[in-house]
Amino acid sequence: MFKKFFSPESIALIGASREPHKLGYRILENLILGGFKGNLYPVNPKANEVLDLPCYKNVSSLPKTPDLAVIVVPAKLALDAVEECGKQGTKAAVIITAGFKESNAEGKEREEKLYTISQKYGIRIIGPNCLGITDTYQNLNASFAPYMPHKGPIAFISQSGAIISAVLDWAKNEKLGFSRIISLGNMVDVSESEVIEDCASDPHTKVILLYMEGVKDGRDFISRVSKVARKKPIIALKAGMTAAGSRAVSSHTGSLAGMSQAYQAAFKKSGVLQVETMEELFDISMLFACQPILQGNRIAIVTNAGGPSVLATDMIEKEGLVAAELLKKTEKNLAAGLPPAANIHNPVDVLGDASEKEYGFAVETVAQDPGVDGIIAILTPQVVTPVNETAREIGKAAKQKGKTVMASFMGGASLMQAYDLLREEKIPNYPFPERGIRAFRAMVDFSNLSTAEKPSSKAFPVKKALAQAAIEKVEKSGRNILTDFEAREVFEAYGFRAPRRTLAKSAEEAIAAAESIYYPVVAKIASPDILHKTEAGGVQVGISNASEMKKAFEKIVSSAKAYKKNAIIEGVEVQEMVTGIQETIIGVKKDPQFGHLLMFGLGGIFVELLGDVTFRIVPIGAKEAEGMLNDIKGAKLLQGYRKTPAADTEALTEAILRVSQLCMDFPSIEELDLNPLIVKKRGKGLVMVDARIILAEK
Amino acid sequence: MFKKFFSPESIALIGASREPHKLGYRILENLILGGFKGNLYPVNPKANEVLDLPCYKNVSSLPKTPDLAVIVVPAKLALDAVEECGKQGTKAAVIITAGFKESNAEGKEREEKLYTISQKYGIRIIGPNCLGITDTYQNLNASFAPYMPHKGPIAFISQSGAIISAVLDWAKNEKLGFSRIISLGNMVDVSESEVIEDCASDPHTKVILLYMEGVKDGRDFISRVSKVARKKPIIALKAGMTAAGSRAVSSHTGSLAGMSQAYQAAFKKSGVLQVETMEELFDISMLFACQPILQGNRIAIVTNAGGPSVLATDMIEKEGLVAAELLKKTEKNLAAGLPPAANIHNPVDVLGDASEKEYGFAVETVAQDPGVDGIIAILTPQVVTPVNETAREIGKAAKQKGKTVMASFMGGASLMQAYDLLREEKIPNYPFPERGIRAFRAMVDFSNLSTAEKPSSKAFPVKKALAQAAIEKVEKSGRNILTDFEAREVFEAYGFRAPRRTLAKSAEEAIAAAESIYYPVVAKIASPDILHKTEAGGVQVGISNASEMKKAFEKIVSSAKAYKKNAIIEGVEVQEMVTGIQETIIGVKKDPQFGHLLMFGLGGIFVELLGDVTFRIVPIGAKEAEGMLNDIKGAKLLQGYRKTPAADTEALTEAILRVSQLCMDFPSIEELDLNPLIVKKRGKGLVMVDARIILAEK
Repeated sequence: MFKKFFSPESIALIGASREPHKLGYRILENLILGGFKGNLYPVNPKANEVLDLPCYKNVSSLPKTPDLAVIVVPAKLALDAVEECGKQGTKAAVIITAGFKESNAEGKEREEKLYTISQKYGIRIIGPNCLGITDTYQNLNASFAPYMPHKGPIAFISQSGAIISAVLDWAKNEKLGFSRIISLGNMVDVSESEVIEDCASDPHTKVILLYMEGVKDGRDFISRVSKVARKKPIIALKAGMTAAGSRAVSSHTGSLAGMSQAYQAAFKKSGVLQVETMEELFDISMLFACQPILQGNRIAIVTNAGGPSVLATDMIEKEGLVAAELLKKTEKNLAAGLPPAANIHNPVDVLGDASEKEYGFAVETVAQDPGVDGIIAILTPQVVTPVNETAREIGKAAKQKGKTVMASFMGGASLMQAYDLLREEKIPNYPFPERGIRAFRAMVDFSNLSTAEKPSSKAFPVKKALAQAAIEKVEKSGRNILTDFEAREVFEAYGFRAPRRTLAKSAEEAIAAAESIYYPVVAKIASPDILHKTEAGGVQVGISNASEMKKAFEKIVSSAKAYKKNAIIEGVEVQEMVTGIQETIIGVKKDPQFGHLLMFGLGGIFVELLGDVTFRIVPIGAKEAEGMLNDIKGAKLLQGYRKTPAADTEALTEAILRVSQLCMDFPSIEELDLNPLIVKKRGKGLVMVDARIILAEK
Repeated sequence: MFKKFFSPESIALIGASREPHKLGYRILENLILGGFKGNLYPVNPKANEVLDLPCYKNVSSLPKTPDLAVIVVPAKLALDAVEECGKQGTKAAVIITAGFKESNAEGKEREEKLYTISQKYGIRIIGPNCLGITDTYQNLNASFAPYMPHKGPIAFISQSGAIISAVLDWAKNEKLGFSRIISLGNMVDVSESEVIEDCASDPHTKVILLYMEGVKDGRDFISRVSKVARKKPIIALKAGMTAAGSRAVSSHTGSLAGMSQAYQAAFKKSGVLQVETMEELFDISMLFACQPILQGNRIAIVTNAGGPSVLATDMIEKEGLVAAELLKKTEKNLAAGLPPAANIHNPVDVLGDASEKEYGFAVETVAQDPGVDGIIAILTPQVVTPVNETAREIGKAAKQKGKTVMASFMGGASLMQAYDLLREEKIPNYPFPERGIRAFRAMVDFSNLSTAEKPSSKAFPVKKALAQAAIEKVEKSGRNILTDFEAREVFEAYGFRAPRRTLAKSAEEAIAAAESIYYPVVAKIASPDILHKTEAGGVQVGISNASEMKKAFEKIVSSAKAYKKNAIIEGVEVQEMVTGIQETIIGVKKDPQFGHLLMFGLGGIFVELLGDVTFRIVPIGAKEAEGMLNDIKGAKLLQGYRKTPAADTEALTEAILRVSQLCMDFPSIEELDLNPLIVKKRGKGLVMVDARIILAEK
C-alpha cells in the first residue's frame, strides 16, 4: 500500500543543504549512510553539489519523477514544494518541516492548505513536523534521527519525534533491531491507522509498537486495526490518559485527547494490547520480537537463588498466570541430573554453585515437560557462578524445544557479556524477574484475543418509524433534550417497557386496573395541582388485593382533598410495583473520536460509589455484550447470589444490543441513560424506570 | 548496640584457608582488601600463615580475645568453634557456614544447639547460612561478597544472600554507595528487627532497605521498627505475598511466611514503606539516598520533549501527586529567558533544540517557585541536544535551592557520560519518568507517616470478670468454640448489645414487652418442638402497635398449634426489630507472627463480593480505628449517602477499640466475628446480630 514511502526507487530531498548542522544535510547523509539503492536527488536552488551528489534547482528539473519527496525547506516554502511534486506526479511525500498546526493560527491555516494540495494531486503525505521514516530492510533512512537502527522485527510508530530519539538510543544499547521507525508528526494526511495496516503487511515486521497521543479518526482506527491486530501483536502506549495528562496533550500537539475510557474500549475492540509505561512497551516488545508466542499460561522457573524465585512466583500469581506443575517424570529426570540439595519442584533451584551444564540441563529438562508453556531462567551472580557459560547453555537449551524462554540475570557490572550472549541467542533478559513475568502476561493476553466480532447483520425487529417520528418531532421543536415521555416512547419502540400504569377514576376502575397490571401495585394521586404527592398522603405502595385497593383509592382521594381544598383530582394512577433482582444502568455518551460509547453497570452504589462500570464502542456484538456483564466486579449479583435467584441476563444482553442498534439508527443521539433499568429474575425481562435521551445540538 | 559486629577492634576468622577457591580464603582477602584497621586473626589448625598473616591453631591460642568471630568451618565443627569463642569471652559471631535448619532435620537440631550455646555464653550470632556483613565506613568487609561497595548512605538488610550478590552487582554499575550490607541468614539469634534498629542509629545510614521473606518475631518487629521508621525511611520488599509465593518461601528457608494482610498491617503500623518489586526498591532508595525529602506533593516538569512530559503528567495524577501550578512571576521569568515557542507553564518545555544554559535556567527558575516541591528534568537525546553539558547545568541549578530534583534522561547509548555526571551531582536518573514519579510518591508517603500511636492507656470500663468467667467456663468444659449465647455474654461484658428480647406467655405480656422494647418489633414462636418457625407461621415482623401485637400473638400461637399438634409452646419471643444504616463486620484472626489481626468492613456484598475490608494489628489506637473507617471503598455509605443519614461512626470507632481491648485482655482468643454488626444513625449506637468467638485449642 505504502510502497512509494517504504520502497521507493527514487527520492528527492527538497531542501538538501551543504551545512552539516542543518537537517537538510543530516537527512541526506542518513539516506546515503543508510545505503539507499535507488536514485537520490538533492534539490537546492543555490547548490550544484551536496555530499558529492549532483544537486538540482527544483523538482521540475529532476531527470525523472521521484517516487518519494522528502521535504525540509522552511514552512513558508513547503506548500510550493509539495505542489510542485504533485504536478510532477510524485505520489508520496514526507514533510519534516515544522511550523504547522502545532505552532500557531498561521501554521494551522498553512496545514489546511497543505491538506487541500494533497487532495488535489492525490499525493499522500506523512507529517508535517516529523522526524521522518526508516525501513531498515529497504536500506531507507529518510529521517534526521541520530542513527539507523539494526535490522530487526519491531516496527515503531510514534506521534512524538522525541520519543523516537529516546527509543533509538535505548535500542542501540540493547542491540535491538527494528524493521521500521515511523514518525507521524501532525498527520495532515496519512494516519496512524494506515501506517499500522501497512506495517502489519510488512513481512519483516513481527510486532508493532505504538506511541500515541490521539487517533486521527477513531472509527477508521477500529476498522483498520481490528483486521490485523489478531495476526500481529500491536502494543500501544496512549499518553494523556488522565485529566491532567490530557491538558498536557492539547498544549503539546493540539490534538484532542479522547476520554481514557473511550481509548480503552477502542483498543479492546481492535485487539490492541495497551500498556501503561514506556518500560512495559519495551519489555513486552522484546519478548514478542525474540521468542515464539506462549501457548498457554503455565510458567516454570529455573533459578540459582531462592529469593528472586519467590518474587517471581508472587508475580506469576498476581498476573493471573499459573506456576507450572512439573510431571513426576520431569522431576525424576531433574533429580538424576542435579545435586541432592537442589529443588526439583517448580521453582527449580539448581543452587548457588550450579555449573553451566547443570543449569542448562535443568532448563532443557523443564522445557521438555508438556505442562510447561514458558520458562524464566533466573540467575544471580554468586561467587562461583559461570555467568557467561550459563547464558550460552540457556540459549542452547531454549532453542531445542520451541517453548517461550526468557532470562532474568539480576545484577549489573559482572553481567555485561552475559547480556550480549543472551541477545545473540534471542533470549530476552529482564533485570528483574517481575518485568519478565509481566511480558509473559501480555503474550497470554495476545493469545486470548478473541476473534473480532463482526457487527451483527441480524437486527432486532423494532418500530424504527415510531422512534424516528418522536425524535424528529423534538428536533423540529428546536429542542435537543427529550421529555421523559418522549424518551420512553423511543425506548418502547426498541423493545423496552416502562412500568405498566393506568389512570383510574373510581375505586372500581382502580381494582380493574390493578388486576390487569397484577398485584402488588402502587397507587398515586393524579392531580395537576399536587406536586408533592407523598406529603399530600397521595401515594400508597405494596397494595396487594382488591379490598386494599379500594381502601387505598378512597384514602388517597380524601387525603388529597384535605391537603389542598380546590385541587383538581383527575383520579388515581395505578402503577406496577417494580421489583426485581437488581438495578442496572445502561448509558451512552458519544465520544468525539470513536462515536457512541456504551456503558453498563449495576445501579446505585455500584455506579456512584464504586465506579463499577464497563464500556464498549457501538456497534456491539453479542459476545461483546455478554462480556460486559462479566466485566463488572458485581457480576455475581446477576448470577444468583445468596438466596436471590439469577437475574435475566439474556434480557440484559439483548438490552445492550438493542441500545447499540438504536444508536446506529440515530447517529444524532448524543447521550442516553436507562437508569435504573430493573432486571427481574430469569425469563421475566427488564423494566425501565427512568429514561433520558439527549440529541446533538443543531 | 552492635558495636562488636560493625566496629570490632579485633576479628578472628575461624576457618581461614590458603586455597583461593574456598570461602575461608575469600573472606580473609575481603577483610584485608576492605582495609580493616584492627587486629585480624586467621584461625586454622593446619596452617602457619595465610595471606601473609600469622595463623592460629585455635581460639584459645589467640593473643587476645577477639571482639568478633567470623566462622566458616564446616557445620559439624561450627558449634565447637562458637562454644570456644563463648568461653574466651567473645560476644559477637557471624556464622557463614550453611547446613543448619535450611538443609534437613539434622541441621535443624544443630541450629537448636547453636541457639543454646549463644544463650549460655551471651554471644550474639548473625547467621548461620549467610553471606556475612559489611560496613564501608568501618572498612569492614566480613563477607564473601564478590566486592566491597562504595561508601554511601544506603543500608541493605537481606534474608537472601543471592539478592545481595545481585544488588552489589547492580550498585557497581550504578556507582551507588552503601553504608552497610547485612546478610541475615537463618536468624538463629540476631533478628532483622535488631539489625534495623542498629542501622537506624548509624550516622552514615540515611535510608534502610529490607528484603525479607518473614519476620523472626512479629511483635518485636513492630515494637522496635516503629520507633525508628518515622525518623529514617525504611523500605521493605516482602517476598512470598501471594499463596503460591508463600509455598516457595517455605520450601526455601523453612521460615513460615505470614499472611500478606498481616504483613501489610504490620508495615503500616511500624511506618515501613512497602514496595512490590526489586525495581521499586532500588528506584525509591536512590531518591532517598541522593536528595532531600520532598516537602509537599507539587511536582514540576522541565522537559525538552512533549511526549515524555505527557506520560509524566499522567503518572503524577495516577500516583496522587499534583502537577504544580507555577506563579505568574515564575512564568514571566521563564518567558524572559526562553525562546518564544517554549511552553512556560508546567510542564515547562524548553524545546528540542534547547542549549544547556536554557535548560539549566529553566530548572533554576522553577526551583525558585515556592509552589514547587519537586522537579523532574526530562531529556531525550535529540540531534542537537548537549546532553553532558545539560546534566552539569541541572546539577548546579538543583543544588542552589534545596528542592527535591530528579532527572529522566531517556535513551541509552549516547547518555552514558551524562548518567555519570548526574550521579556526581547526586541527581538520581530514571530511564523512564514514570519510575521517578513513583519514587516521588514514596517520599510523600514517608512525609505523611503519622507519628506512631501509643497504645491508649485509657481502657474502656468493661466487665472483664464476667467475660473471664464465661471464657473459663468454656475452657473448663474442654471446648474452644463459644456458643452463640456465651459469645454474646462476652461481648456484652465489653459494651456491645444484642437485640432486646423478652419471652411473653400471654398477649398482655407480649404488649408490655413490645412497649418496653419500643415498636416496631418482631414476634417469634418459642417452642423446643418447632424448628422451622417461618414454615409454621410462627414469625411476624414489623409489628407496630398494641393491637397488631395482640393479633400477632394469637395468630402465631394458633398457627403453631395447627402446624404441630402436641408441640410444647413456651410462649412468643418479642424481639427488637433491628434496623439501621448499614451492616458492618468486625472480625479478628490471630496471626502466628503479629498476634491479633483485626478486620473491619461493611457487611453483605462489600465483604463477600468486593473484599472491601481493612486490617490493623491489635492493640489499636483511636486514630488507627478512625483510619479503618476511612480505608474502605464503601466509606461514604457511613457518612450519610443520598437520603440515608450519617451512621454512628463514633460508636463504630469505639467498637473497634473495645474489640481490641477484649483481645488484649484474652490472648487465648483465636478468632472472633461480629457479623453483622448493625450501625444505626448518629447517636444511636450499634446492635450485634450475630457473634462468634473461638479460643485457641488446648
